[in-house]
Amino acid sequence: MILDRVNLPEDLRNLSIDEMIKLAGEMREIIIKKVNATGGHFGPNLGIVEASIALHYVFDCPKDKFVFDVSHQCYPHKILTGRKEGFLNPEKYHKYTGYTAPEEGEWDLFKVGHTSTSVSLAAGVAKARDLKGENYNVIALIGDGSLSGGEAFEGLNNASVPGTNIIVVVNDNDQSIAENHGGLYANLKELRENDGNCKNNFFEALGFEYYFVKEGNNIKDLIETFQKVKDINHPVVVHICTQKGKGWKDAEINKEAFHWILPHTLDENKTETKISESYASVTNEFILSKAKDDKTLIAVNAGTPGVFGWDSEFRRKLGNQYTDVGIAEEHACAYSSALAKNGAKPIWAVMSSFIQRTYDQLSQDMALNNSPLTILVYWGGISGADATHLCTFDIPLLKNIPNLVYLAPANKEEYLTMLKYSVEQKEHPVAIRVPNTELVSTGIEDLTDYSVLNKYKVVESGEEIAILGAGNFYGLAEDLTQKIKSKYGFNPTLINPRFLTGVDNELMDGLKEKHKLVITLEDGLLDGGFGEMISRFYGSSDIKVLNYGSKKEFTDRTPLNELLTRYRLKSDLILEDIERIF
Amino acid sequence: MILDRVNLPEDLRNLSIDEMIKLAGEMREIIIKKVNATGGHFGPNLGIVEASIALHYVFDCPKDKFVFDVSHQCYPHKILTGRKEGFLNPEKYHKYTGYTAPEEGEWDLFKVGHTSTSVSLAAGVAKARDLKGENYNVIALIGDGSLSGGEAFEGLNNASVPGTNIIVVVNDNDQSIAENHGGLYANLKELRENDGNCKNNFFEALGFEYYFVKEGNNIKDLIETFQKVKDINHPVVVHICTQKGKGWKDAEINKEAFHWILPHTLDENKTETKISESYASVTNEFILSKAKDDKTLIAVNAGTPGVFGWDSEFRRKLGNQYTDVGIAEEHACAYSSALAKNGAKPIWAVMSSFIQRTYDQLSQDMALNNSPLTILVYWGGISGADATHLCTFDIPLLKNIPNLVYLAPANKEEYLTMLKYSVEQKEHPVAIRVPNTELVSTGIEDLTDYSVLNKYKVVESGEEIAILGAGNFYGLAEDLTQKIKSKYGFNPTLINPRFLTGVDNELMDGLKEKHKLVITLEDGLLDGGFGEMISRFYGSSDIKVLNYGSKKEFTDRTPLNELLTRYRLKSDLILEDIERIF
Repeated sequence: MILDRVNLPEDLRNLSIDEMIKLAGEMREIIIKKVNATGGHFGPNLGIVEASIALHYVFDCPKDKFVFDVSHQCYPHKILTGRKEGFLNPEKYHKYTGYTAPEEGEWDLFKVGHTSTSVSLAAGVAKARDLKGENYNVIALIGDGSLSGGEAFEGLNNASVPGTNIIVVVNDNDQSIAENHGGLYANLKELRENDGNCKNNFFEALGFEYYFVKEGNNIKDLIETFQKVKDINHPVVVHICTQKGKGWKDAEINKEAFHWILPHTLDENKTETKISESYASVTNEFILSKAKDDKTLIAVNAGTPGVFGWDSEFRRKLGNQYTDVGIAEEHACAYSSALAKNGAKPIWAVMSSFIQRTYDQLSQDMALNNSPLTILVYWGGISGADATHLCTFDIPLLKNIPNLVYLAPANKEEYLTMLKYSVEQKEHPVAIRVPNTELVSTGIEDLTDYSVLNKYKVVESGEEIAILGAGNFYGLAEDLTQKIKSKYGFNPTLINPRFLTGVDNELMDGLKEKHKLVITLEDGLLDGGFGEMISRFYGSSDIKVLNYGSKKEFTDRTPLNELLTRYRLKSDLILEDIERIF
Repeated sequence: MILDRVNLPEDLRNLSIDEMIKLAGEMREIIIKKVNATGGHFGPNLGIVEASIALHYVFDCPKDKFVFDVSHQCYPHKILTGRKEGFLNPEKYHKYTGYTAPEEGEWDLFKVGHTSTSVSLAAGVAKARDLKGENYNVIALIGDGSLSGGEAFEGLNNASVPGTNIIVVVNDNDQSIAENHGGLYANLKELRENDGNCKNNFFEALGFEYYFVKEGNNIKDLIETFQKVKDINHPVVVHICTQKGKGWKDAEINKEAFHWILPHTLDENKTETKISESYASVTNEFILSKAKDDKTLIAVNAGTPGVFGWDSEFRRKLGNQYTDVGIAEEHACAYSSALAKNGAKPIWAVMSSFIQRTYDQLSQDMALNNSPLTILVYWGGISGADATHLCTFDIPLLKNIPNLVYLAPANKEEYLTMLKYSVEQKEHPVAIRVPNTELVSTGIEDLTDYSVLNKYKVVESGEEIAILGAGNFYGLAEDLTQKIKSKYGFNPTLINPRFLTGVDNELMDGLKEKHKLVITLEDGLLDGGFGEMISRFYGSSDIKVLNYGSKKEFTDRTPLNELLTRYRLKSDLILEDIERIF
C-alpha cells in the first residue's frame, strides 16, 4: 500500500501523481470501512480526499495554517497528519474525534463543529500572523452549503480588507440545501457550468481574486492551482468542484442520505429497522394534516430537514408550505417571526445546538415583537455528543428572554395539545422542547389550556418533598417518587411543570405548608436554567431546594451514563442527597 | 406650510413635485429642531427625507408594507404617517419613540433597533402574503452600513428564492464604517461612481434585478424609479445614493459625529463640556500605552467606535493594531478568538445590547477553544433605554457559557488590574463588564491575582447578613451596609464578588457559620444571572437569600429611577424586605 509510506504531509512529496491517485483510493477505502463501522460523516469526506492530498502536497502544514469549516470533512486530513491508525485499526476507531481537535496535534487549529466559521477564524489567524511579522499561508476550507450562513459572509466581507495572504478554498459539491436554488447558489451553479465564468462573480464582487478548478477530484489540476496561489500576497478564492460521496455509488446519487450515516448502513445484509412512532413522526403527521386545511401553516428549517424526518415525501406534500432556508439560522428565526406577524402560522424546527446561533433574533426580531410563531427545539438534553454539538444550553438560552414561552412536554398527548395551542394562539412566541426520549403515551387526551401561562400540573399531591420533573426527566421524577415512598413511607408531591419560563407562584407558595424540600430535575444546564429560578423563588423561605441538571462544562463524547452519574441524575444518588439533608 | 396639508401618505398625492421639494425642506427643519432639543439620530433622518416622501407617494402604506432596518431613519416616515405633532409640538416631542413602533399605528410593522434585520423580516412578510393569496408590495429599507451584518446577507440570499414581489431599497450614503474600504463597500463604491455599473454586481450575483438612483435626494428621480418597480413580480434592489446629514452643513461633512447627537449639540452658545476621566478614557490610555510596547495588541470593534471613545486620533495612533470590522459582530467575535489563538492580544469592545448577536460565536468559536481574548462589555446595566437597546441581558448571556470568565470591577484600580491580567493571560476568554457608572477610584493599586478564579473580596467581615454587590451595584451594597449598621447595630459582611461566572465555594460555605441572610445585588436581569447561582448554592442550607436585579421584561424608555423602585433596588426598600424576613 502507498499509505504505508505516508505518515505525515512531507511523505506526500516523495510520491508521483499516479501514486497519489492510488493513495486516494486507499484512503477512500479505509474511510468507507471505518465510517460504516462507527457511523459518521460519509459523503463530505469521500468528496474531499483528493483536495486534502493536494493541499498537503502543496502547502506546508502546520507552518501553513488550515482552518476547516464545520470540520466534518477532516478525515483525509487526519489520515495524512499522523492519525491514520484511527482509520486502519478497528481498535483505534474511536481514538480521534470526527472533527478537528487541537488536543490531537498541531495540525488542527480549532475545535469546530458548527458551520460558516472558517473564513472569520482564518482572517483572525492571518491578522495575528501579520501583526507578528510572520510569513505563511492561511487556508480556509469551506463547503458550498456553509456559505449561506451569515458568519461566513461577514468573514468573506472582511477577509479581503487587509489585502494580505488568505486563501479561501470553496468546496462546491452542488449540495446546496434549499430546494429552490436561488441567491448565491444560482451564482455558484453558473460558475460551475461555465468554467468559472459568469456575469456577476460573487467572490470577485467581495474583492477576492478568483480561481476555478473544474475537476476538484483531479489531484494534478488541484496541485497546479494550489501552487499558483501559494504564498500569494492578497486574498484569493479557489472554487473547486468536487463530487460528494465519490467512490460509493449510492452516496454519489443520494447525497443527502449519505451525508452522515449510522453504523452498518452499507452492510449488504442490513435488515431494515422498523420505524416506530416517535415524537418526530407525531409532529409530522400533525403538520401534514393541519397544513391541508390551513394554507397559512408553513414548516421552516435551516438546512437540516433530515433531523426532523422532513423527507422528500413530506416536502412534496407541503409544497409552498415548506421552506428550507439553507444554513441560515438567523434568517430562519427572523423570517418565521415576520411570517407570524403577517398572519401566517410558521412552525420552525431547529436543533438545540443550532438555536444558539439566533439569540439576538429570538430576542429582538421575535420576542420583542411578540410574534406568535411556533419553535420546535429538537434533541435538547444531556448526551454523549461531541463538544461541538452539545444540546444542554437551550433552556438557559431561551428561558430568560422576555415574552417567550418555553414548554417541556412529558408525553405525546401533552405535546400534541401544546402544538395545537401554539399554532393557533396569537399572543406569544412559543417554543416546545420536543422530548429526546422514546415516545411516551398516556392514552388520555390532554385537555389543558396552555394559554394560562406558568400553571404546573400536580400529578400526585403529597407531603414533605415535592419533585418537579421537567420534560425528558419527568420519568426520573416518577421513579424517584416511588423510591421515596418505599424508603420513607410517605407520599411526596409529584409535579410536571410543563412551563420552563416562569414560576407557578400560587402552587409553589402553597407547597410551603406541608413540604420541607423541593427537588428540580431538568435535562440541561443548571446555570441559568429552570431549577435556579425555583431556588431564587424559595430563597427567603424555609423550604430547601435541590437542583439537578448538567454542570457548566463542554463534555466531549463522554458516555451518557457517566454524565448522569457525574451530575447525580439517578434516583439512588438523589436519595443519598436527600438523606444527607432531610 | 405645505406640511399643514399633509397628515397621511395619501395627502402627498395632491402635491406637485415642487411642493414635495418644499415639504422636504419643512420636514428637515422640524427634524433638526426636534432632534437638537431631545437628542437622537440626526444624519440618517436628514438623508432619507426625500426617499421617505417618494416611497409614500408611490406606495400605498399600510397596504404596502415597509420594513425599516434599524429604524433609526424613520422620523420622516413618522411625520408622514399621522405623527407630525411629535416633531412640531415641543410638548409632544417625547410622544413617539425614535424607532418604528407598531403600538403607534398600522404603518409600523416591527419594533426594531438592531441592524441588518429588514430583509429577513420583509421576506417573511412577503411569504405570508403569498400564502394568504394577497397582493401588495413589500419594501425593505436598509442602509449600506447594515449590509455587512450576516443576518442581512442571509436575508438577501433567501429573499430572491420565492421569486415574487420584494423590493429592497439600499440607502447608500457612503457611510461604510470600516476605515479600509474592502469587501462589499468597494463594490458599492464602484457602482456609485459608475452610474450603477460594475463588473461584478453584488446584488445581481444574489439574483436580484438591480436599479440605480444616482440622486437619492431628488424626489422626481426617486418617484420615477419607485414607480417602475411598484407591483413588480420578482425581487429587486433599488440602490439609492443619498447624502447623510443633508441640510446641516456640519453633519454633511462629519457624518460619524452627527449620526446620533446629544440635546443642544447644534446650539451656537453651547459651551464645551469638559471631558473628565471615565472608564472609557482609562481604557483607551491603557490600550495606547500597551500597544506601543506590544505590537501584537489589537483593538477590535464592530462599527461602533464612538461608543468607546475610539476617535480618529486613537485609531491613527494604533494604525494596523486597530480593526473596525463594520457591523459584523459575529465576525468580530470569531476573528478576535482566532487572533488570540494565533498569539496576538485582541481587545474586543462591544455594547451589551449588541453582544447578543454573538452567543454561538462566544460559545463555539471562542469558549470551546478557550481562546485567551479580552472582551470589554460596555453599557451593561439597567437604564431608561429604548426596548431595542436594553443592556440588561449580558450577564445571563455570558455567565452560563463554560470556560468564559466574566469580571465585574467596582472601581478604576480593579478594572485596570483585571485588564492587565486579561491581556497577558493565556488560559481563558475573559470578559470585563466596564462599569456604566462615573469613575470610582480608591487611590490604592489593586494587587489581586485574578488568575485565581472565583475568589470574591471580603471588604468588611461581619455577621448576620452578607451583602454581595456586583460591579455597578457595589456602591449600593456599601450604602446598604451602612444603613443596616445604623438600624440593627451589628456589622454586616460586605463582599465585592468581582467574578460573575462562578461561586467562591469556600467563602460562601464559611458564611454559614455567622450569617442568616445573603443578599445579592446585580445590575441586570435576575433570571439566569449571578444571584440565582448563589440561591442555588444555598438551596439546601439554612441560609436565606434575597436576589436583587431587573425583572424579565422589555422596558421601553421607562425612567431609571422608576425601574430601580420597581425592582426594589434602593437601600430603603431592601431594608423593608429584610425587616419582613429577618
